[in-house]
Amino acid sequence: MTSIPAPRIVTVRQSILKANDATAAENRQTFALSGVRAINLVSSPGAGKTALLERTLRDLSGSMKMAVAVGDLATDNDAARLRQWGAQAEQIVTGTICHLDAGMVQNILPKFDLNELEVLFLENVGNLVCPASYDLGEAARAVLISTTEGEDKPLKYPTMFNTADVVVLTKMDLAAAAEFDLALCRENIDRARPGVRVIELSSKKGSGLEAWYEFVRGAAF
Amino acid sequence: MTSIPAPRIVTVRQSILKANDATAAENRQTFALSGVRAINLVSSPGAGKTALLERTLRDLSGSMKMAVAVGDLATDNDAARLRQWGAQAEQIVTGTICHLDAGMVQNILPKFDLNELEVLFLENVGNLVCPASYDLGEAARAVLISTTEGEDKPLKYPTMFNTADVVVLTKMDLAAAAEFDLALCRENIDRARPGVRVIELSSKKGSGLEAWYEFVRGAAF
Repeated sequence: MTSIPAPRIVTVRQSILKANDATAAENRQTFALSGVRAINLVSSPGAGKTALLERTLRDLSGSMKMAVAVGDLATDNDAARLRQWGAQAEQIVTGTICHLDAGMVQNILPKFDLNELEVLFLENVGNLVCPASYDLGEAARAVLISTTEGEDKPLKYPTMFNTADVVVLTKMDLAAAAEFDLALCRENIDRARPGVRVIELSSKKGSGLEAWYEFVRGAAF
Repeated sequence: MTSIPAPRIVTVRQSILKANDATAAENRQTFALSGVRAINLVSSPGAGKTALLERTLRDLSGSMKMAVAVGDLATDNDAARLRQWGAQAEQIVTGTICHLDAGMVQNILPKFDLNELEVLFLENVGNLVCPASYDLGEAARAVLISTTEGEDKPLKYPTMFNTADVVVLTKMDLAAAAEFDLALCRENIDRARPGVRVIELSSKKGSGLEAWYEFVRGAAF
């Protein structure tokens, strides 16, 4: 078997993460100085990040200044979906990269008037692995998992759940049809991230959103 | 912003992929010499790879010799699920790596008696980005997408769909509840991978499986 010596890859990887952390610290300071709460949303593809943001913009845009930076490998469909609700949404096209990094976020920030904003959502690439290691400078990280994905995901993607400030169970309206075992899923979440707050909601039906909105506003819980 | 010069990363990445391709070629020869059809299954987390394999093992194990090598970041839950159906299933724990590579597959092959096997499923890590670039030496690659994930995934993850030999639409039993637009999804699949065969099925209800079993057996279509 042909192989690349592991140490070289590890060194490059560590350097990338170190550089990312430095940039993330700069972003964090920028957000703090502007009074912006940045929220990093991560999940599998199709767990409902954009649907939740659409609902959030629709419900809260009268009372709170919000904007979105959204990452995808290709297309700016999500930004277009989000702009329908009157909020600024900027697409970051990542090409072959499976996550946002702090530099991509830093590069897009000049497009926003941060002093006018209260909340900036950073909608990450749909992926339960890569985004886990990349701090974007966010104030909080929300991991979404849908009831149709199965209850085992927190155990299979521990790093992602380890780094979550809140876990959002989406598509609760499909729970019965998918024969979703809520108690088992909550148990697995708690094993991966003991004590983490879990919010159960349906963006489509509008259930459970108040707890999410408390989190968005930065209420302690 | 602190950053690593891009060329160095690109060089390492190209070397990794080149080494992977060499090992994949070795695997492909091994499979050919043993008369084993290797099928690489890729999808988002929770799209139903393991459920489809469980159903396949249950339905076909009387008529065909099958085994599974399954990749996950953590846990050997999937291998345990698959062994219930009497087939050999070996877990590859990938740690922080978001995909199987040809070397991981090569390292696990001595655990199987390839001369006894007809089909070896390589169940990849649940991820629509990373596995796309890694040839495992498979005869065919199946991309699964569930009706609950949304119709836009082929456009958002073009590389994964570009490399598919077949696209399997899973959880068709949830299509109505999820308000899934089948025509739109098929149109998006065809844009990403013109002419690719699409199989619609439900592992839970047992619908649409015959087309999948034809693919498993290697029937031309």
